[in-house]
Amino acid sequence: TEKGVEALDAGRLEATSPYTVGSFLSRLDVDGRREVLRLIPLEHTTSILSEMDAEDAADVVEAMREPRAVQILEELDPDDSADIFNEMEAADRERLLGKVDDETAATMRELISYGPDTAGGIMTTEIATARPSMTVIQTVRHIQRLNDELEHIFYVYVVDEENRLLGVVSMRDLVMHGPLDYLRDFMTRDLKGVCRVDMDQEQVARLMAELNLNAVPVVDADNRLVGMVTHDDVLDIVQSEATEDIQKLMGAGGDEAVNDPVFQSIRRRTPWLLINLVTAMIAGSVVYAFEDQISKMAILAACMPVVAGLSGNTGAQTLAILIRSIALGDIHSGEDRRVCIREMFKGLMNGLLIGLTAAVTVGALTGNPMISVVIFTAMVMAMCFAGMAGAFIPLMLNKLGFDPAQSSNIFLTASTDIFSFAVFLGLGSWILL
Amino acid sequence: TEKGVEALDAGRLEATSPYTVGSFLSRLDVDGRREVLRLIPLEHTTSILSEMDAEDAADVVEAMREPRAVQILEELDPDDSADIFNEMEAADRERLLGKVDDETAATMRELISYGPDTAGGIMTTEIATARPSMTVIQTVRHIQRLNDELEHIFYVYVVDEENRLLGVVSMRDLVMHGPLDYLRDFMTRDLKGVCRVDMDQEQVARLMAELNLNAVPVVDADNRLVGMVTHDDVLDIVQSEATEDIQKLMGAGGDEAVNDPVFQSIRRRTPWLLINLVTAMIAGSVVYAFEDQISKMAILAACMPVVAGLSGNTGAQTLAILIRSIALGDIHSGEDRRVCIREMFKGLMNGLLIGLTAAVTVGALTGNPMISVVIFTAMVMAMCFAGMAGAFIPLMLNKLGFDPAQSSNIFLTASTDIFSFAVFLGLGSWILL
Repeated sequence: TEKGVEALDAGRLEATSPYTVGSFLSRLDVDGRREVLRLIPLEHTTSILSEMDAEDAADVVEAMREPRAVQILEELDPDDSADIFNEMEAADRERLLGKVDDETAATMRELISYGPDTAGGIMTTEIATARPSMTVIQTVRHIQRLNDELEHIFYVYVVDEENRLLGVVSMRDLVMHGPLDYLRDFMTRDLKGVCRVDMDQEQVARLMAELNLNAVPVVDADNRLVGMVTHDDVLDIVQSEATEDIQKLMGAGGDEAVNDPVFQSIRRRTPWLLINLVTAMIAGSVVYAFEDQISKMAILAACMPVVAGLSGNTGAQTLAILIRSIALGDIHSGEDRRVCIREMFKGLMNGLLIGLTAAVTVGALTGNPMISVVIFTAMVMAMCFAGMAGAFIPLMLNKLGFDPAQSSNIFLTASTDIFSFAVFLGLGSWILL
Repeated sequence: TEKGVEALDAGRLEATSPYTVGSFLSRLDVDGRREVLRLIPLEHTTSILSEMDAEDAADVVEAMREPRAVQILEELDPDDSADIFNEMEAADRERLLGKVDDETAATMRELISYGPDTAGGIMTTEIATARPSMTVIQTVRHIQRLNDELEHIFYVYVVDEENRLLGVVSMRDLVMHGPLDYLRDFMTRDLKGVCRVDMDQEQVARLMAELNLNAVPVVDADNRLVGMVTHDDVLDIVQSEATEDIQKLMGAGGDEAVNDPVFQSIRRRTPWLLINLVTAMIAGSVVYAFEDQISKMAILAACMPVVAGLSGNTGAQTLAILIRSIALGDIHSGEDRRVCIREMFKGLMNGLLIGLTAAVTVGALTGNPMISVVIFTAMVMAMCFAGMAGAFIPLMLNKLGFDPAQSSNIFLTASTDIFSFAVFLGLGSWILL
């Protein structure tokens, strides 16, 4: 990367998308970042920072000379700026909030007060508003004056004198209507996608996806308009929620990335492995309880991985479907029991089929039909249990308010391992010995 | 659901979002769907069908009386209509293509010719175009005439006489400029997000996310404008790609949903379980090779799940990070080797830590320090291998053109199981017996 920095020139950096420069910068240390950003004009720097992870962007801003940091924090979209303030050390935050202009400081304090994962935390406060009594031409002149300040205008929100939301007109509506038409005569009053500031960001994303909206207005408890969430914020949320789910499910950190510092990612994975060590030892002690039987019949030890592996995978299949269904809101209340029974049935059916295949194969290899009976019975029971557990565990965790992606796989693997070892070795000792 | 259908009335259905009605319909059988759709006016039916899975929507349309089906296929957005045609039985497709008007039929045949996962397959052909010599007011009058036909206008694409793309003006540009300004004087000529018809939909989604675009124009090999992909299509793609990745990774069908018919979802899971049975039997036969040693020391069988479980999870952690990094394009060419070495190192570090914990615990429980030595050495080696394999397998599959999510977990679990059983039992027989 050292070499990379030297080879860069300002022209090439400007021609590259801010996202790409941002992900390149995320991999440099603080000195490297400063060196690269020195090559880039202020305007381009703000686009790059807004594409970077807020944590990395905060590191960059904290390392800048104060006047430049202040200038950048004022220039950035307020939602991006607030994310960066959120990630700063408390001392740096207070110092810089004291230096930016009063308006920015007030907006920042407001935005920081909302949780970062709520509509209030991801919204922009740069919105165009108008009154219902304005005409198209008045509105156009009004937003032409705002133009410089507003990065994305899709909609003009129509509000009353207390800033309560009455309706919306799109840029397209303005183009389509005569210059003297009043907004009140053609504005859309029936706003389907309005969010409260405290709505969870995943719900906001789901709402916008379902209603195919470009942007949704955000209101406070008194229905006063405070901001707007745009489609590009939502796309980022959907991407990162999916990444979190997939990584948590497999026992890695939800926000871990491939280029994170090595020791940071080791530290994040260790606790999960320690929990896994405990559950694996419990499973091992179930096996240990059958020490005598295994000594007499070591074939039991050889068949254990087959029963445990297949029931683990049956549970994992169900778990994956359930995690996504819960995330996308496809399971409705009162359906939990039905879903568990269906998944248990799917496990049973595949257990009969796979169990029979395994039993025939093992029987043919060992010449011992009684082992086949044990394998078949154990696999049917274990896979039936695994299907049920793969649905029950995430549904229950979700109901109790835990993140179903984070902890389901630990409990699932532990329960399918323990159940399959106990059933297989129990049946084995009873039938074979 | 029978009861549900009777309790519905047309008013309530119209007040519900098309997405919600669509997901409700997906769960009914064909008769139930017809019954519900009979209650709904044509215009609302098209919105509902466009929110449904194309496969389900095709079932509904095929079950309709022909005149109504024809009317709906003509009314739908061409991209949605083409998706439905794509999912029909060949005979139904040809019959209905013969009945719709010539223009729709021609558009459909063109759209069907593109792969469903390409820019051409997801684009809409309903776009607004203008010439560079037109003024703002001429353009506004032109799109006012088109208005009824075009569902979403964000942009007017500026093209030459051969329909080659020259630039773009947004609705906002039209609002911001004087009525007599020429498009050529203010249009954006430097179009960053232009897609070729054959670009993969995931690439289109990534492009739009990186550049924060609402819509991108789609051109053919001669740079002629043929359509446009809009942000709502992309959000759907991002959602469904994430679902596919997570479900494939855990060995379920990429497009399986929680409410799919039971036997369909069993059938889809069975092949993966059969492959898993083969790999589990290979792992079992490694254990079987140590039958004599296990008979003499059954504690080995009890410790096997610990070594295999921990190395499996170490590999899974790495795999999850890699799958998302590959999907999001975060790994650049030439970095593969570095990534594998880093992940191997992370596995090694956690192997030292977790291996030591396991060795101390097992030593204390059994009072046999030699078992501790075997456990520690085997876990360090197995977890180091697992970290490397968790990165190497998806990177290699991706390089060979396979979907890294689909098959990685099979190969990973098989290789970590086999390696850990072989190393642990091998070391155990050598040191302990």
